[in-house]
Amino acid sequence: MTNTATQTLRSDSTDPEALVAAMARSARVAQRQLAAMTSAERAAALHRAADRLEASADAVLEANAKDLAAGEARGLAKAMLDRLALNPERLAGIAAAVRAVADLPDPVGQVIDTHTQPNGLKFQRIRVPIGTIGIIYESRPNVTADAAALCVRAGNAALLRGGSEAVHSNRAIHAALVEGLAEGGVPADAVQLMPTQDRAAVGAMLAAAGLIDMIVPRGGKSLVARVQADARVPVLAHLDGINHTYVHAAADAGMAASIALNAKLRRTGICGAMETLLIDADFPQARELVGALIDKGCEVRGDDRIRALDGRVIAASANDWDTEYLDAVLSVAMVDGIDAALAHIARHSSGHTDAIVTADDAAAERFLAEVDSAIVMHNASSQFADGGEFGLGAEIGIATGRLHARGPVALEGLTTYKWQVRGQGQTRP
Amino acid sequence: MTNTATQTLRSDSTDPEALVAAMARSARVAQRQLAAMTSAERAAALHRAADRLEASADAVLEANAKDLAAGEARGLAKAMLDRLALNPERLAGIAAAVRAVADLPDPVGQVIDTHTQPNGLKFQRIRVPIGTIGIIYESRPNVTADAAALCVRAGNAALLRGGSEAVHSNRAIHAALVEGLAEGGVPADAVQLMPTQDRAAVGAMLAAAGLIDMIVPRGGKSLVARVQADARVPVLAHLDGINHTYVHAAADAGMAASIALNAKLRRTGICGAMETLLIDADFPQARELVGALIDKGCEVRGDDRIRALDGRVIAASANDWDTEYLDAVLSVAMVDGIDAALAHIARHSSGHTDAIVTADDAAAERFLAEVDSAIVMHNASSQFADGGEFGLGAEIGIATGRLHARGPVALEGLTTYKWQVRGQGQTRP
Repeated sequence: MTNTATQTLRSDSTDPEALVAAMARSARVAQRQLAAMTSAERAAALHRAADRLEASADAVLEANAKDLAAGEARGLAKAMLDRLALNPERLAGIAAAVRAVADLPDPVGQVIDTHTQPNGLKFQRIRVPIGTIGIIYESRPNVTADAAALCVRAGNAALLRGGSEAVHSNRAIHAALVEGLAEGGVPADAVQLMPTQDRAAVGAMLAAAGLIDMIVPRGGKSLVARVQADARVPVLAHLDGINHTYVHAAADAGMAASIALNAKLRRTGICGAMETLLIDADFPQARELVGALIDKGCEVRGDDRIRALDGRVIAASANDWDTEYLDAVLSVAMVDGIDAALAHIARHSSGHTDAIVTADDAAAERFLAEVDSAIVMHNASSQFADGGEFGLGAEIGIATGRLHARGPVALEGLTTYKWQVRGQGQTRP
Repeated sequence: MTNTATQTLRSDSTDPEALVAAMARSARVAQRQLAAMTSAERAAALHRAADRLEASADAVLEANAKDLAAGEARGLAKAMLDRLALNPERLAGIAAAVRAVADLPDPVGQVIDTHTQPNGLKFQRIRVPIGTIGIIYESRPNVTADAAALCVRAGNAALLRGGSEAVHSNRAIHAALVEGLAEGGVPADAVQLMPTQDRAAVGAMLAAAGLIDMIVPRGGKSLVARVQADARVPVLAHLDGINHTYVHAAADAGMAASIALNAKLRRTGICGAMETLLIDADFPQARELVGALIDKGCEVRGDDRIRALDGRVIAASANDWDTEYLDAVLSVAMVDGIDAALAHIARHSSGHTDAIVTADDAAAERFLAEVDSAIVMHNASSQFADGGEFGLGAEIGIATGRLHARGPVALEGLTTYKWQVRGQGQTRP
């Protein structure tokens, strides 16, 4: 089912660079076969993979029980054990997500633009898969299926490297997926799971420029920071979500409160959560807004003018303006007009998601034009920063880099393009 | 005219990292002002820059004479002196190129796509400048003007680092450009020329992730290789142009000969030149094709079957299939059908430009679909691999990487996008 030479190397090799190179080379060959399949064939193969995943529920849950027992024995935190745990419902959800990705429109082969030059040469840019994508992730075993499905849908090979806590779960999910994909004609080497938990293998993936085309880290900040610092391969990621909401002088007070409460408190641990609230000095209901946040259990760290509004506000330190709390904590500053708000955001935003609340459309358009973040919003909660909420169907991640793809990245971000030039014998004068 | 703090640091500092950081920070501020200008304002400022360049012709030519004298004294090769030399006609050409870039359609602000979700949130992706672009180049002083103009047209700041051979020419061109741009309202820090020829400053640019958004190397292979090996900033470049032309069994013999001669011999030193010719074993006029190339002065290095066609063919070594000659030398292999041609290209192409010559449209479409290079051509000379020939008006370079932009890169490749989300108070359930 899999390439025998690679299989042998995988199990025998102790050299992580040789291992990664062998995996990537076989992935490249498999990716070319995958790319030559039709969109319908790739979709059908993903449905087979979802079927196999459900049919293998017993094996996957048994493997997961092993990981959970080992995790408990190692004293893993409850939150991590929860991220790791599977049950029949969660497994059905994973299979359903694979089917949903299978049914997304395929960007591969789309004509981006076309034109004909006066000499008769016809130029066309068409979307093609990027090639081989490396996914480096932590304890969530669902990433094994999610990431593999997104890569395969867009014609890419996936090299998966999951966390050691989930090693048995990942192997069981991977085995089921590859079995289903193979039934659908996808070469097994198109989706490979790193056979070792040796951390040097991660380093070898990050160094594999030319062999791996893009790395997507999925996990906490320390993982992303390490990947960004060490990678020679382009990385699609975000490190911080230091997201601002600016309540303009002309904001509707009720809307401002409901957006601020939602942006901060709906889920505090996601990258789209608001971390800094900027309140215009001319917004009349500043006191009520700050009070409402504190009443709902949010710790507010404010500048002097915000502290003067409510005795419960804690003094913000200089660090607070550059801190992603991922908790029910919020830094709040009072700003004198939109220029001051834009200057604060230019200085402190991590370029993820920044929002304005205002009934003044001119102010809103200026904010949307001048704030230089991946996502800029008017009159909406920053918690909408999510591929599903954007209507993309899924996401491989959210990117705050400036090249290739920004914001929520789904299938299109897993493609690139090539130029097709059609002539009738033209030579260059 | 320029930021005083930076100016002081520029002339006094001996720490290349501090110098690059100071330049990049002032460039970031200037870039935001540049991005807030209208497209017409940026175009008008570039016309002013072109005017100033022509008005400064005496100063530029005098500076160039200094560089030429120094270059002769140092014994620079004639080809390098020619690349370095300016005269009134060449200078007029540089100014004309700046005006042509000024008149190109501006990609900034283009709406890429837009859609509304069922909850009423309206999503729009619009093109925005990338930010700060570092250009590292060698002896051609025209790059100072070309690269600056392309960056400014698309709202980007440019940090220019030219070769030491052209230091006086570059300074004179840069001074004239910045003067004209400033008359048009572009902050002087938007286009900065590295004030030192210290090679460590190049290293500092390559390391300046987060300060510089993209590096474009313009020059020979050793420069590009160093940049690609050392950069922590994303690089837009190509290292090799190992370009194939496959003459299919069903190729018209006259077309095959004229395309092959043009692709190899029109100009042998450009990256779009053909370096390997693949002749199908069923192409009847293989002998005539090889003979015509040799008759025109091309050295042909062939495999055994090609050698059997003409006694003048030299035996190719294994290295020849991976060599970019940039000279009147060509490797030629005979292949058994399109599968063998595709396999040879998959193994040896540098992903720049590969072409098929055939009257069989099905074979052509298969080639265009399966060859995974930035540019794939049917019945045309690979020497068309050029932004001007593609109708892009200009190019900052040709990219063989797989992310962001591929093939000839002009203004669109100097932009990225952001998501604008317009709501009416939506919060996430």
